[in-house]
Amino acid sequence: MAKIPRSSENDYTDAMSQTRRTFLQQETGAALSHLGHYSIAPHTLAGNIENFTGVAQVPVGFAGPMRVNGECAKGEFYVPMATTEGTLVASYSRGMRLTREAGGITTTVIDDAMQRAPMFAFTNAREAMDFGKWVEQQFDNIKVASDATTSVGRLRNIEQYAVSKLRWLRFNFTCGDAAGQNMVSKATKAGCEWILAHYPKKIDHFVLSANLDTDKKHSHLNSLHTRGKRVVAEITLPKQLMTDIMHCPPEALFKQRQYSNMGALLAGSVNNGAHFANGITAMFIACGQDVANVAESSAGFTYAEITPNGDYYFSVTIPSLVVATYGGGTGLATQNECLNVLGCTGKGNVNKFAEIVAATVLCGDLSLGSAVVADEWVSSHERLGRNR
Amino acid sequence: MAKIPRSSENDYTDAMSQTRRTFLQQETGAALSHLGHYSIAPHTLAGNIENFTGVAQVPVGFAGPMRVNGECAKGEFYVPMATTEGTLVASYSRGMRLTREAGGITTTVIDDAMQRAPMFAFTNAREAMDFGKWVEQQFDNIKVASDATTSVGRLRNIEQYAVSKLRWLRFNFTCGDAAGQNMVSKATKAGCEWILAHYPKKIDHFVLSANLDTDKKHSHLNSLHTRGKRVVAEITLPKQLMTDIMHCPPEALFKQRQYSNMGALLAGSVNNGAHFANGITAMFIACGQDVANVAESSAGFTYAEITPNGDYYFSVTIPSLVVATYGGGTGLATQNECLNVLGCTGKGNVNKFAEIVAATVLCGDLSLGSAVVADEWVSSHERLGRNR
Amino acid sequence: MAKIPRSSENDYTDAMSQTRRTFLQQETGAALSHLGHYSIAPHTLAGNIENFTGVAQVPVGFAGPMRVNGECAKGEFYVPMATTEGTLVASYSRGMRLTREAGGITTTVIDDAMQRAPMFAFTNAREAMDFGKWVEQQFDNIKVASDATTSVGRLRNIEQYAVSKLRWLRFNFTCGDAAGQNMVSKATKAGCEWILAHYPKKIDHFVLSANLDTDKKHSHLNSLHTRGKRVVAEITLPKQLMTDIMHCPPEALFKQRQYSNMGALLAGSVNNGAHFANGITAMFIACGQDVANVAESSAGFTYAEITPNGDYYFSVTIPSLVVATYGGGTGLATQNECLNVLGCTGKGNVNKFAEIVAATVLCGDLSLGSAVVADEWVSSHERLGRNR
Amino acid sequence: MAKIPRSSENDYTDAMSQTRRTFLQQETGAALSHLGHYSIAPHTLAGNIENFTGVAQVPVGFAGPMRVNGECAKGEFYVPMATTEGTLVASYSRGMRLTREAGGITTTVIDDAMQRAPMFAFTNAREAMDFGKWVEQQFDNIKVASDATTSVGRLRNIEQYAVSKLRWLRFNFTCGDAAGQNMVSKATKAGCEWILAHYPKKIDHFVLSANLDTDKKHSHLNSLHTRGKRVVAEITLPKQLMTDIMHCPPEALFKQRQYSNMGALLAGSVNNGAHFANGITAMFIACGQDVANVAESSAGFTYAEITPNGDYYFSVTIPSLVVATYGGGTGLATQNECLNVLGCTGKGNVNKFAEIVAATVLCGDLSLGSAVVADEWVSSHERLGRNR
Repeated sequence: MAKIPRSSENDYTDAMSQTRRTFLQQETGAALSHLGHYSIAPHTLAGNIENFTGVAQVPVGFAGPMRVNGECAKGEFYVPMATTEGTLVASYSRGMRLTREAGGITTTVIDDAMQRAPMFAFTNAREAMDFGKWVEQQFDNIKVASDATTSVGRLRNIEQYAVSKLRWLRFNFTCGDAAGQNMVSKATKAGCEWILAHYPKKIDHFVLSANLDTDKKHSHLNSLHTRGKRVVAEITLPKQLMTDIMHCPPEALFKQRQYSNMGALLAGSVNNGAHFANGITAMFIACGQDVANVAESSAGFTYAEITPNGDYYFSVTIPSLVVATYGGGTGLATQNECLNVLGCTGKGNVNKFAEIVAATVLCGDLSLGSAVVADEWVSSHERLGRNR
Repeated sequence: MAKIPRSSENDYTDAMSQTRRTFLQQETGAALSHLGHYSIAPHTLAGNIENFTGVAQVPVGFAGPMRVNGECAKGEFYVPMATTEGTLVASYSRGMRLTREAGGITTTVIDDAMQRAPMFAFTNAREAMDFGKWVEQQFDNIKVASDATTSVGRLRNIEQYAVSKLRWLRFNFTCGDAAGQNMVSKATKAGCEWILAHYPKKIDHFVLSANLDTDKKHSHLNSLHTRGKRVVAEITLPKQLMTDIMHCPPEALFKQRQYSNMGALLAGSVNNGAHFANGITAMFIACGQDVANVAESSAGFTYAEITPNGDYYFSVTIPSLVVATYGGGTGLATQNECLNVLGCTGKGNVNKFAEIVAATVLCGDLSLGSAVVADEWVSSHERLGRNR
Repeated sequence: MAKIPRSSENDYTDAMSQTRRTFLQQETGAALSHLGHYSIAPHTLAGNIENFTGVAQVPVGFAGPMRVNGECAKGEFYVPMATTEGTLVASYSRGMRLTREAGGITTTVIDDAMQRAPMFAFTNAREAMDFGKWVEQQFDNIKVASDATTSVGRLRNIEQYAVSKLRWLRFNFTCGDAAGQNMVSKATKAGCEWILAHYPKKIDHFVLSANLDTDKKHSHLNSLHTRGKRVVAEITLPKQLMTDIMHCPPEALFKQRQYSNMGALLAGSVNNGAHFANGITAMFIACGQDVANVAESSAGFTYAEITPNGDYYFSVTIPSLVVATYGGGTGLATQNECLNVLGCTGKGNVNKFAEIVAATVLCGDLSLGSAVVADEWVSSHERLGRNR
Repeated sequence: MAKIPRSSENDYTDAMSQTRRTFLQQETGAALSHLGHYSIAPHTLAGNIENFTGVAQVPVGFAGPMRVNGECAKGEFYVPMATTEGTLVASYSRGMRLTREAGGITTTVIDDAMQRAPMFAFTNAREAMDFGKWVEQQFDNIKVASDATTSVGRLRNIEQYAVSKLRWLRFNFTCGDAAGQNMVSKATKAGCEWILAHYPKKIDHFVLSANLDTDKKHSHLNSLHTRGKRVVAEITLPKQLMTDIMHCPPEALFKQRQYSNMGALLAGSVNNGAHFANGITAMFIACGQDVANVAESSAGFTYAEITPNGDYYFSVTIPSLVVATYGGGTGLATQNECLNVLGCTGKGNVNKFAEIVAATVLCGDLSLGSAVVADEWVSSHERLGRNR
C-alpha cells in the first residue's frame, strides 16, 4: 500500500487534511465525510498530532451542577463528559444531586509529583549502593542541572530503588499547571547528564527509563507514592437523604462495600471502588487531557464508614491522577471551552481541576454503588442505553 | 446554580443541544462556539449519552500502512489514532515501517470472554461450598436462562472463587461483535434469578457484582483469565533491519528488556511493556470504543528473545482488551468511518479489530523501546512536541 | 576449607553425625554439645536430610484446648506450637479460650489441589493455542500417564495459561495425606512425556517448571486457585463474651478491620489479616511439615461482620495451605508425637490437620487483633517476652 | 477437656515440662517419649515460649563450605540447615561447590530498617494532610521520645502513606543485632504518645498498627522499601565451570530465566527466583530466627546476565530479610551453637549473618535452576528423597 501523503513544507493545513482523507477513501473505499467536519485550525495542532486528517466527534454531555468544597475548587460546577456509554451522564448527575443536597463534597490534593526514573547499572551491588549515597549528597547540584531546563518544573526529591547491581533514581518534580511528562523527561535527562559527567567512579550503563516510572500503566509504586496528583474527595451523607434519593440506606451500601473490598482483594484489583475510570475518561476526553493516562489514573481506594448517628461517610482517593490545565491538548478548541466552563483555564488551576475530577468520581461511585445495591443497575442500562 | 435544561419530550435535538450551550454560556461565561460544531445527528445519540451538548473535537491522524498477518486481519492497514500527544502518530508509524519491511506482524486472538461476577453469601463456608457444587451440576439450566436474554451472547462457563462464606460466580460469555458488558449483565442477572428461584437451600445474600469482575479497573484475575479478547502480536525482526531503521541492534533492545522486566517487577506494574495504553487509547477514541476500558486494556505482557541467528523475536500479549465493532459508540459518525477505513464494520469483524489493535501496540512498543535505547526519546519529543 | 566428612557406605549413623560435629568444632572452634543431643535414630532420616549432624532443639508449648466443629476435626484439641517468640502460645491460648466459650470454630476444607506447571514454547502464539486445544482433548490420556506414576496422586484437571508463544499447563492433583510436591512433579513429568511423545506438531521447548506453579513463594494465582488446601475457619462471637474476655467490643474490632483492610490494600499485602504465619509456622515446625511452605501458606483473607444482634462474625480463609500427615517430616520422632496428640496420624487425616491449623490461625488473629485494639499489645510483649 | 497445667510460681522447670507431657498423654493417649528428650535448660526459655513441654527435634545438616566475599562475611562457611526435605542440603552444597570454585559470592547489605506503622484518623483528608506536615516538622522530638525507650534502636526516618482521612506513619528503625519487632513497637508507641500529647489539633483515632507495616506477611511495600535487611548476593560464573559442574551452559540457564520471569509476572508471584524460602527457612530454624518471618523473607528478585565473554552473572536480592544475632531464639542452646559455627555470635554480626543467608539462597537457586534445566530435578528427588 502507498505511503500516507505528507507535506514536508507545512503539513498542518486544511488542504493536507483533505488530501489525506481523499487518499484514504481511494485506498480503502471508506467514505470520510464526517471526519473532515471540524472547526479547529490545523495549524494549532502542531505538537499535538502528526498526519492530521480530521477529528473524532465524541459526544459531550454535561452533568451537574455538582457542589464542591475544595481547597481550590469552591462552588458549583457543570461537568463536561465525553462518552458514548449511555446512562453515564445520568448516573453521575444522580450522584451530584445527592451530594449537592448533602452540602457538597470536600476535596483535597494531598500530594503532587511527576516523575522519570532513570536506571544506572554497576559492576556490583556495592558500587550501586555507593553511587546511591553519592547521589544523596549531590542532590543540590542535580537539582540545579534539572531545574535549568524548565521555567516551571522543580525537582522536589529523588527516591532510590535497588535490585541487584541496578539502581533506579525516581526524580519527583512539581510541574505547575502542566502534566509534565515531557518536562520531567528533559529535566531528568539533564540531571543525569550532570551525574554522568561528575560521578567519580565507573557507571556500567545508564538509561533514562526502565519501567519503574511507571508511565501509561498502573504500578503499585504509583499508588503508594503518587504520580500526578493524589487527591481525595469525601462527604458525609445523611441517612435519610440516601434513602430518599438513592433508595439505598447506608447499611446496605456499607455491606456492599465489605463484599466489594473482599472482591477487590481476591481479584487482585488496583481499585476497590466501582468505576473511577468512567468519570475520569469522560472528563479527560472532554478537557484535553492525555487520555492514555487513564491507565494510571483509574487506580484508587474507596473508604467508607457508618457514623455514630447512622450517616454514611464515603471517600475516594485517586493516587495517580495525571492532569493538566496547560499544555498537551488543553489548548485545543473544544477542550479549552470545556475547561473554561469549569473555570480551569488560566494560571494556577490544575489542582482545582484535579479536585473537580475527584468529586466527579465520588459522585459516580456513589450512584453506581447504590444502583447495584438497589438492583436498578441492569434495568437503568436497559432504559437509557439502547444496546444497539 | 440552575439545573441543566432537559426536554422530557425529545432531548436529542440540535435545539436542545443549543439550549444547553446557551445555558452554560450564561451560567459560566464560557464561550462554546466550537463545542457546537458537529455533523452527527443528535437523534443517533440516544443510548450513548445524556444531556448532549456538542462534541469534543479530538484530532485524528493516521499511522501506517501496517502489515498484519493475522487470523482475521490480513493485509495492510492505515490506523486511525485520536490523540493530542505529539510524536505519537509519528512514533507508531516508525514501528509500522519497521515491521512492514520485516514482513508483517503475526496476530492471534487466543481467548475471548466477557463477564459479570455475582456474589452469593451463606451462613458459613460449608454451605457456600455446597452451593458451588450445585451450581456446577446446574450449568445447563443456568445457561438456558442466561442465553435466553440475548440473541448474541452465549454463556461459555462459570468459574467459582471463594473466600469465607462468600462465593463469586464468574460468568464468562462470548458476545459476538459487541463488547458485551451490558449484555452479560442482563444475561447473568437472568441466570442468577434462575439460581435464586431453584436453589433448594438458603442463600443469605445476593448481589450482581462485588468487584471480582473487574470492570473499568485492572485486576490480576483479568490478566490471568482474560476480559474481552486475549490477543498476541508477534514478529521476528532481522538484525540488520533493526539497526538500519531503529539505530538499535537487537542486543541493545534485549538488554533494555531485561532492565524493564526488573523495573516492572520492582514497581509492581501491571505491564512490563512500554506504553500499550497510548496506541490503545488513540484507537479507542477514534473507533468508538468504550475508552474507560483503557483501565483494563492497558495491562499486558512483553516477551522477547534473541534468535540463534541474532534476530529479534518480539511479542506483546494484551490479556484484557475490551473491544467492539457493534454497539456502544461504534455506530457514531466519525467512529464508524474510522472502523470502515480498517474494514472492521459489518458482521464478524471484532477479532480483526482486536488483532489490528494488538499489532499497533507492538509497533508502538518497538518504536518507543528503540528510541529510549537509542537516546532519541527526549529529543524527538522536543522536535515534534511543542510542549506548549 | 575442608570438605564435610561423608560416608559413602552409610552416612545415616550416630558415628557419622559425631564425626561431623567433631569436624565442625575443629574447623570453626564452635562447641556443639547440644546439637548432638537427640533421641531420633539417624537411619530414619534418609530421605529427609543429608549430612545429618544433630538436631535443632526448638521449644514446644501447647495451646488450648481449642474447640473445633469441623467436617473432619471434631472436638477439642491441644495444639503443639514450636516457637521462640514469647507470648505466642499465651496469645493463641487466649483466642482458644474465647472461641471455646463461644461454642467452637467451624472449619471446612473447600478446595484441594497440588500442582506442577510445565511450560511449552512454540513458533508462535497460534501454534501454542492449537496445542492448548489438543491438550484439552487428550486429558484422559494424559491422566492415565500421570496417575500411573503414583498410587495416591490423582490428576484432577489441567488449567492453561498463555503469554506470547508460551503456554503453561497447571496440572492439579489430589495427593491423599501427602503434601505431594514430589509426587506431582513425577506425575506431571510422566504426563508431559506422554504429550511430547504424542503431540503431532512441533514443540520448540519444554520445561517442567517456570515459576507459574508457584512453589515456595506466594503468588496471586495460588490465592485465587488454591495450592494445597483452601480452608476456612469461622465463628460468631457473642458480644458480651468478647467484652468479657478480650476487653474489646465487636464494634471496636470491626473498626480496626476496616483500617486493616485499607492498610493491606495500600501496602499491597498478600494477607489482610494479622499474623497467620505465626500459628502456621509454629505448628509446621512441631508437626513435621515443610516449613518453607510458610511462604505460600501465610497468604490469606480475613472477613468479618457485625451481625444484626451485635455479635461478631469472624473468619479466616487460607487459600494455599500446604500440609501433610504422611511423608516429608511427619514420620520423625517428635513430629509424629505432636501429630498424634492432635489425632492426625494414620490414614485420611490431612484435612483434619488442615482444619486444626485454620482454627488455630483464627484464634491467633482474634487474640492479636483484640490486643492491638485494647492497647495491650506492646505491654503484653513487655511482660511475657524478655526482649533479651 | 481440661486446662493445660501451669505453675503460677515457676513454670519453666523440667518438672512442669514433664507434668504437661504426662497430662497430654493421659488426655490424648499419645506417647510423648521423644518430645521430652532435650538438653536445654527450661529456665532459659522464659521470654521465648509459654507452656514449655519439650522440644521438636529438627534434623540439622551442614552444607558447604561456601565462599563469601562480603562486606561483613569474609571467607568460607559451613552452613547449618534444619530441614526435613530430602535433597535440600545436597542441592545447596552443589551450588556452594560451584560458587566456591568460581571464586566466591559477593554479598552486600544495601539497606536496613525495621518498622511499625501506626495509623491516625482525622475528620477529613485535609486535616490528615496538615497532621502529616506537622509530623515532618517534629521529627526530632518524636525521635527523642522513641529512642529513649531503647539502648539499641534508633529512629531513622518516618515515611507517610495516605488514603482518605487516614494517615499511616511508617517508623523506620535500625536495631543493632536484634530483629527488633518488639523494640520498634515499644519505641513507636512512645513516639506516638509524644505525638498524641503534643499535636495541637484533633486526632479522631489512633492505633499502633493497621496492616501497613507489614509484619509476618508479604507486602509489595516491604519489597520496595525493605523490612529488616535488604541484601544482595551476586557472582559471575565462568561458562566452562557451569557446564562442568552443573551440566548446564549459561545460555540454557538464561533462557530458563526468561521463561521464569514471564511465569512470575503472569502468576503474580512475589519472587521471580526459584526457592529462596528453602534455604532461608532451614537456616532460620537452625539459627534461632523467628521462622514466621519466612512470610516476608521469601520475597525477592533474581537478576541475571550473559556477560560479553559468555559467562553468567547471577544475583539474588532479598528485600525483607528479617534476621537477628541477638534476642529472640538466638541465645538458645543448639541455635547459638549453629550461629557460632558461622562466627555470628557476639556483637555486631547481624549483617554478616544476613550476607551468609543471601549467599546460601544464591547457591540454592543456582542449583535448582540448573537441575530444572538439566532435567535432573525429578530424578534427584527420586534418588535422595524417599517420598515415604
